[in-house]
Amino acid sequence: MSSSLPIHDLTVFQMSKMLRNLDGWLGKAEDYAKEKGFEVDVLLQARLAPDMFPLARQVQAACDNAKFGAARLSGIEAPAHPDEEKTIAELRERIRSALAYLETVTPEGLAESGDREIQLPFVQGKACKGRDYLLEFVMPNFYFHITTAYAILRHNGVPLGKYDYIGGIKMYDVETG
Amino acid sequence: MSSSLPIHDLTVFQMSKMLRNLDGWLGKAEDYAKEKGFEVDVLLQARLAPDMFPLARQVQAACDNAKFGAARLSGIEAPAHPDEEKTIAELRERIRSALAYLETVTPEGLAESGDREIQLPFVQGKACKGRDYLLEFVMPNFYFHITTAYAILRHNGVPLGKYDYIGGIKMYDVETG
Repeated sequence: MSSSLPIHDLTVFQMSKMLRNLDGWLGKAEDYAKEKGFEVDVLLQARLAPDMFPLARQVQAACDNAKFGAARLSGIEAPAHPDEEKTIAELRERIRSALAYLETVTPEGLAESGDREIQLPFVQGKACKGRDYLLEFVMPNFYFHITTAYAILRHNGVPLGKYDYIGGIKMYDVETG
Repeated sequence: MSSSLPIHDLTVFQMSKMLRNLDGWLGKAEDYAKEKGFEVDVLLQARLAPDMFPLARQVQAACDNAKFGAARLSGIEAPAHPDEEKTIAELRERIRSALAYLETVTPEGLAESGDREIQLPFVQGKACKGRDYLLEFVMPNFYFHITTAYAILRHNGVPLGKYDYIGGIKMYDVETG
């Protein structure tokens, strides 16, 4: 299919990659805190506006968007996470747990996911198709929380750049004139 | 195809929707500035960290990611934009211009886009397939700039919430027990 992208690539592949990138940003935050001599876990309550979620909740939400997205689309049960992380180390463990779950969601498990009926707990009496749920809800939300986590770290001085955000891309060599 | 999403939906449909949302946030910023009695165009230089781009560049980059993404994937020429916007009103005009271009990119124009060879001006001697370009580069970058623009506005007090970010979703009524 040259005019479409597999839902497995859009969810498991790309969201796992971004979660690994996020884990790397938190690792750089630990290095930065050590270098500057501050307690890295103060960053968990850092936020960009008083009525926006702090870093801890942004990381939890990024993990949950990936996890619940894949779970609702595949029907493969996801582990529960009670949102009790108190340290950067625990947030990184949370990311690893989300990644381990995503590994269990195969392309076969997502074979009928575009046509699945998805009901969202916060919209009673309504449903959407899996394809619309992924396109209009899961992906924008996932990137919202990933990017806001990144922005909170940058706002607090953690040295990150666009390559840290994007990560590697599948490229190949070409002849150039 | 129940296990994949059309590239036209991932680019033209969803990016147009997010750009319309962005236009709405800038409209709310204008209302907020009027209410608080400040000059709205000061927001163009607002940023989250001294080494991150300000709002103006975030909006330009969101438009460019959608525009160049669709142009490289379809081969349909895009209009040039010299990044000279000095006001919120001009940024909103820039968004409208990007939206007008996206309307010219049809599903047929993207029929072979997944297999297209894409060369990026900043990576000499390398290329990627259209599908990887969209998945690993265009979408994460687009949402990066959209979300950072949103976060800059929130950081400066503009009253926005998750519904403003996400916009409407295609849903239908269901029977609930």
